[in-house]
Amino acid sequence: MKKQLVAVAAATALLGAAAVHAQGIQIAPAGSTPSRLGGSQNFVGHVTVDMAQVGQSGQHGSVGMVDFAPGARTAWHVHPVGQLLIVTDGKGWVQEQGQPRREIKAGDVVWIDADVKHWHGAASANGMRHWAVAYKKDGQSSNWKEQVSDDQYQGR
Amino acid sequence: MKKQLVAVAAATALLGAAAVHAQGIQIAPAGSTPSRLGGSQNFVGHVTVDMAQVGQSGQHGSVGMVDFAPGARTAWHVHPVGQLLIVTDGKGWVQEQGQPRREIKAGDVVWIDADVKHWHGAASANGMRHWAVAYKKDGQSSNWKEQVSDDQYQGR
Repeated sequence: MKKQLVAVAAATALLGAAAVHAQGIQIAPAGSTPSRLGGSQNFVGHVTVDMAQVGQSGQHGSVGMVDFAPGARTAWHVHPVGQLLIVTDGKGWVQEQGQPRREIKAGDVVWIDADVKHWHGAASANGMRHWAVAYKKDGQSSNWKEQVSDDQYQGR
Repeated sequence: MKKQLVAVAAATALLGAAAVHAQGIQIAPAGSTPSRLGGSQNFVGHVTVDMAQVGQSGQHGSVGMVDFAPGARTAWHVHPVGQLLIVTDGKGWVQEQGQPRREIKAGDVVWIDADVKHWHGAASANGMRHWAVAYKKDGQSSNWKEQVSDDQYQGR
């Protein structure tokens, strides 16, 4: 009998959790997932990534805040469905392969088309933070390539 | 001859503009489009909307910053493909029809599923700002409904 009660309680807890998740509005509170450092395979320099766990539902694939220290940047990469960047602080650079490096600053909104090889990051003398909204195709939102060399980063 | 030169110059300018637009990365600089006030048909209270003009490309439909004064809110509405809210400042409320009102604060990320009737806005005593990313279906990102009454807004 006790086991049955525990089982019922567990099932109720699961149903409760499912009901919350089944709501049509998901809220990922600030600080609800730990920050992680950007790995040295996909980034150069000090990068902090805060992902928001609302990506299981809907059309968007992933949502996160990325904080680049001065000089820090992503590796070259491609998004199979594109990416939206919303710059919240500081000054940085974004570059599409074969095009000049371009400046982005707090308040700018950037759209990167699907299959465009590019990188983004802080400027050499200023940090930069942005929200990044990437869209998924076959479960993938980014295809990572080689690092951005210092010459490429400096626009030389 | 002068007319021809002008025509060539105009065509070059147009091609130049087209080439920039054809780049795979679009930047909408902060303040590049005028703010507008949220109309009284879809909002209650003082609401300022700053849309970013990068929506012509890719999967997302519209991107904008919405600033709600204390007490201000949207009307009830539905997004045919869903909506992402990134709260940047203050404290506000979001409510799904048939569910209790929920609090959202700076740093929270909110996902609203497709076809979920809801409203969002500031709390009664605090302003709230959020980025809103809405996705389009058949050219539409929002279907607007009736206003949120004071009783609904106050959770009475």
